[in-house]
Amino acid sequence: MNFITFLGIGKMGLPMANNLANAGYKVTCWNRTPAKLKNLPPVLAGNSDLNTAISGADIVISMLSDGSATKEVISKLSDTSLSSVKTWIEMASVLPQEAIDQASYLKKNSIEYLDSPVSGGTVAAKNGNLAIMVGGELNIFHKTKEIFYPLGRPVLVGPIGTGQLAKLANQAIVGITIGAVAEAVLLLERGGADVDAVRDALSGGFADSTILQQHGARMSKRNFEPGGSVKTQLKDLKNIQKVAKMLDLDLPMLNDVTKRYLTLADNSQNLEKDHSALFIELLKRNKIKD
Amino acid sequence: MNFITFLGIGKMGLPMANNLANAGYKVTCWNRTPAKLKNLPPVLAGNSDLNTAISGADIVISMLSDGSATKEVISKLSDTSLSSVKTWIEMASVLPQEAIDQASYLKKNSIEYLDSPVSGGTVAAKNGNLAIMVGGELNIFHKTKEIFYPLGRPVLVGPIGTGQLAKLANQAIVGITIGAVAEAVLLLERGGADVDAVRDALSGGFADSTILQQHGARMSKRNFEPGGSVKTQLKDLKNIQKVAKMLDLDLPMLNDVTKRYLTLADNSQNLEKDHSALFIELLKRNKIKD
Repeated sequence: MNFITFLGIGKMGLPMANNLANAGYKVTCWNRTPAKLKNLPPVLAGNSDLNTAISGADIVISMLSDGSATKEVISKLSDTSLSSVKTWIEMASVLPQEAIDQASYLKKNSIEYLDSPVSGGTVAAKNGNLAIMVGGELNIFHKTKEIFYPLGRPVLVGPIGTGQLAKLANQAIVGITIGAVAEAVLLLERGGADVDAVRDALSGGFADSTILQQHGARMSKRNFEPGGSVKTQLKDLKNIQKVAKMLDLDLPMLNDVTKRYLTLADNSQNLEKDHSALFIELLKRNKIKD
Repeated sequence: MNFITFLGIGKMGLPMANNLANAGYKVTCWNRTPAKLKNLPPVLAGNSDLNTAISGADIVISMLSDGSATKEVISKLSDTSLSSVKTWIEMASVLPQEAIDQASYLKKNSIEYLDSPVSGGTVAAKNGNLAIMVGGELNIFHKTKEIFYPLGRPVLVGPIGTGQLAKLANQAIVGITIGAVAEAVLLLERGGADVDAVRDALSGGFADSTILQQHGARMSKRNFEPGGSVKTQLKDLKNIQKVAKMLDLDLPMLNDVTKRYLTLADNSQNLEKDHSALFIELLKRNKIKD
């Protein structure tokens, strides 16, 4: 039996912690905003003091907002409270280099590390079917992986940092595919086709994807309730730019789509819209008002 | 019972004609290169004289190479041989305007018209599960649609020409998504991830598609056996450019990916490669030799 301390019980973290507790793990939650600890479901314990929350845990799962949040939290941990911890699992989306730095910092306390960001959003977090992209050593993955089963499907994708890289690749494909679907939808609308019928006709074929079906429908309906926000998509795209620069790569579609999301974000009202709102930028570029 | 004349028995046309005959229709084939008529399967009749082949047919299905080929064939048809024809079904990929012009020309002979291009390639043509995007009038679609059932799944997507527009939208999404997957694969390779494992990890999520799984695998293996060729992808992208210009649309990703396929096609050896070979252009742009 593992004693897990779960850091960060936001929209993703809370259902994940809950699924772990329901699977039989002893889970103590900590959150930067302690108010969220007040109404925890009965299966979850809460502790508003960071070092006390971690004392006695063998596994820490971190699901904070980003890499700098995790870095700040790690820097506050005492050697004493870390003494029981065997494994740190970073499940938040951070930069690959931040994951490597965290692992190196924690190694001084003989703590093993996996970077394991997730994809699938709050629905998959609740249903326990997240895609979990794991970076780390094979033997650590093997002895730790059953922890992931109540959360979703873990796949080891390479050394520490590559879990994060896989998450960025995921977001890269999503952002560009939204752009592709936006151009297809506009072409079809302007040419007088029934766009809903076309999505149906294309289902199951080479052009089909969840982006075509779900985000395409949002574009047709001009309904940009999130889903995934422009703000998050833009954060991910900026992180991809940083990584591409570090790796000395020219990725032309990513450069262009990042610029277009930045243009969209010039109007701050767009930040909280669904990322399919890139369609709005395409309409503006074509001087189309609806 | 309908008597169908099937024009053009190439890689797509022959299995389609065969599926119609096996479903009980009386099918006579004609082909521009008459040699192909010599070894037809027993269920198919063949006739190398165009006007004789069409005489007595109620339905003509055209599956020639492009719009100018169909136009040339239509111009050679006599009023007498067209006299029995009730419906012309254009299943080849032609421009939306070419479909509209064909329909208008045939209307003089009181012939009804559907433009009905397909997607799914030779495998779907053989298995009778093509996506069929139909443009035309609702009442003509309703009385004709059972002809399509041995071939695949027909969906009416709007007036004449919009079937072709839907096919172009399909090809637009495919071309850009190949570009997206290429950038993701390069990012992952350069960052040291196991790309096959990442494709597995992302399966079923927002970034997933047949393009990610099939074309992504071709990129990782540097195996560009077609599949769909660069030549065909480029023809489709050029046609999208023509249509976008007619509709006065600025489609930035389509513009850029078309230029990049043109650069790839500068080396004529690349024309017959699979369209996932856009990855080669991305490697060259990054001065990566493998």
